Amino acid sequence: MPVYLAVVGSAVCDPEIAAQAREVGREIGQEGAVLVCGGRGGVMAAACQGAKDAGGATVGILPGTDRSEANPYVDVPILTGLGEARNAIVVRTADAVIAVSGGFGTLSEIGLALKMGRPVIGLGTWELGRAGQADPAIVRAGTAAEAVHLALALVAQGGNEIQ
Amino acid sequence: MPVYLAVVGSAVCDPEIAAQAREVGREIGQEGAVLVCGGRGGVMAAACQGAKDAGGATVGILPGTDRSEANPYVDVPILTGLGEARNAIVVRTADAVIAVSGGFGTLSEIGLALKMGRPVIGLGTWELGRAGQADPAIVRAGTAAEAVHLALALVAQGGNEIQ
Amino acid sequence: MPVYLAVVGSAVCDPEIAAQAREVGREIGQEGAVLVCGGRGGVMAAACQGAKDAGGATVGILPGTDRSEANPYVDVPILTGLGEARNAIVVRTADAVIAVSGGFGTLSEIGLALKMGRPVIGLGTWELGRAGQADPAIVRAGTAAEAVHLALALVAQGGNEIQ
Amino acid sequence: MPVYLAVVGSAVCDPEIAAQAREVGREIGQEGAVLVCGGRGGVMAAACQGAKDAGGATVGILPGTDRSEANPYVDVPILTGLGEARNAIVVRTADAVIAVSGGFGTLSEIGLALKMGRPVIGLGTWELGRAGQADPAIVRAGTAAEAVHLALALVAQGGNEIQ
Repeated sequence: MPVYLAVVGSAVCDPEIAAQAREVGREIGQEGAVLVCGGRGGVMAAACQGAKDAGGATVGILPGTDRSEANPYVDVPILTGLGEARNAIVVRTADAVIAVSGGFGTLSEIGLALKMGRPVIGLGTWELGRAGQADPAIVRAGTAAEAVHLALALVAQGGNEIQ
Repeated sequence: MPVYLAVVGSAVCDPEIAAQAREVGREIGQEGAVLVCGGRGGVMAAACQGAKDAGGATVGILPGTDRSEANPYVDVPILTGLGEARNAIVVRTADAVIAVSGGFGTLSEIGLALKMGRPVIGLGTWELGRAGQADPAIVRAGTAAEAVHLALALVAQGGNEIQ
Repeated sequence: MPVYLAVVGSAVCDPEIAAQAREVGREIGQEGAVLVCGGRGGVMAAACQGAKDAGGATVGILPGTDRSEANPYVDVPILTGLGEARNAIVVRTADAVIAVSGGFGTLSEIGLALKMGRPVIGLGTWELGRAGQADPAIVRAGTAAEAVHLALALVAQGGNEIQ
Repeated sequence: MPVYLAVVGSAVCDPEIAAQAREVGREIGQEGAVLVCGGRGGVMAAACQGAKDAGGATVGILPGTDRSEANPYVDVPILTGLGEARNAIVVRTADAVIAVSGGFGTLSEIGLALKMGRPVIGLGTWELGRAGQADPAIVRAGTAAEAVHLALALVAQGGNEIQ
């Protein structure tokens, strides 16, 4: 069974962030992991494109009921019809989550992943604090390659949890 | 984009029904369609096995949160954690649904599929009536091959609906 | 803790069926049970109206994200945003389910309820069969009062299951 | 239709935070708003207790399938069976969300609420930042009374959104 890595981020993003997401996808594809995402545009589309560039496989867990919502780089579109509640399935399905920048939906996926015990690697994403102290729950990465390697290392370490 | 066909039926079944489900899966694989199911045992496992025998692809949309719940012939396990509510995603994700025998969960999937406008083909499954009259909503098939060909024909006919 | 009874049926129905649903709601209210439904029109609205006529309480578990979808007799609107997948929550939340006539959505709720071990009482609803034999899983009632009394008796009998 | 306010926080908490949550619930009850929560212990139980102390009404949207999971101050238990995905329903059902301290599940609810356009008021909860800058999306309150009054004011201001 391959490793499943979720990439979460905004459905609309600027070209710089898209380039980074595409690089994350490419690394995932090269490593032979399966990319899971919310199936839409922006960070999700760029990451899927990168994975396909590298010969990888992609799963898109869509909020709506129409397959045409999926970006063109999704291999397997799952039509949930659940709206935002589908975020829980995106992170549940993956062994670890890489957050690339992102907005409030991404924040919810970070929270859900941490709650479910999935490692979360952050690339320019939300910073969390409590009572004036930075919270270390998100593992920070500086580059796409580092993010994917950290994710795979953390999965290998705790990997018995999800089988 | 390939056609997605769901196979629904019980998680425990006798060998005769398993053989039929496997034949349904084999036909789906031969036709180049993707098999979607609830990912568990019985009819689901047999259908996935048949699809893999024929070189096809399989998606398992699991009720729980553990990948080990999936039968060994599932290529892409989706961990929903939604319990029975995941039935809605199984049928939503498919272009048509083939019901092989089955119990109450299968009955719910038939109802959901018909509600969502997906064609339902029945192979020895539930019979529906209203006010003493048989209801024709389930298209009856006599063999696995007929079930898959009927499903594909109905998808081709109404195929613009899901894109 | 009061008993929770779900009333399931179509969002659009003719006046005769609405009258029957209203009578079901009235009996539920008189018995001090809480009425749970999908929160919309037709059978759901009529049942809620009946429950309110009798001083009862009503919960509407809506498919969408807008409180204005609820019929005016819903006391507690739950906004699921899950579409048809919310049917699982309607029947899960109740101790027993009364199906009044109904279409494919109702059929799915009957299947889900039976799968979850909830008693299902039918009032002019779907008839189920297998291999040419009628299936007795739906307990048939002839009147609204009989439906509610059967539901309460079945809950009292097996009532330890849901606490 | 009354205002619905969600209170989100951990299922286990220390007495000081419980006291604060109870005070939040009491203010909600006094204001005639309905308290929505995840239905379990800790912050949720304390908030529900406060609401009942003040004669208010409480709704508990539970992750599991068993009514006994609900804390004793829940008036209306909704059995979703959806696990963490039920967080989306908690915040969707409310007009605004008050986060009292809280862990990763609470963080997910903050993200979902902001994504859905619900105001989020924070009482000693997560602090959000981006690129080294504090993010102002969570409206900070210093006391329970202030949190509830801020929530009601923000709902009154934008109140046409959810009807």
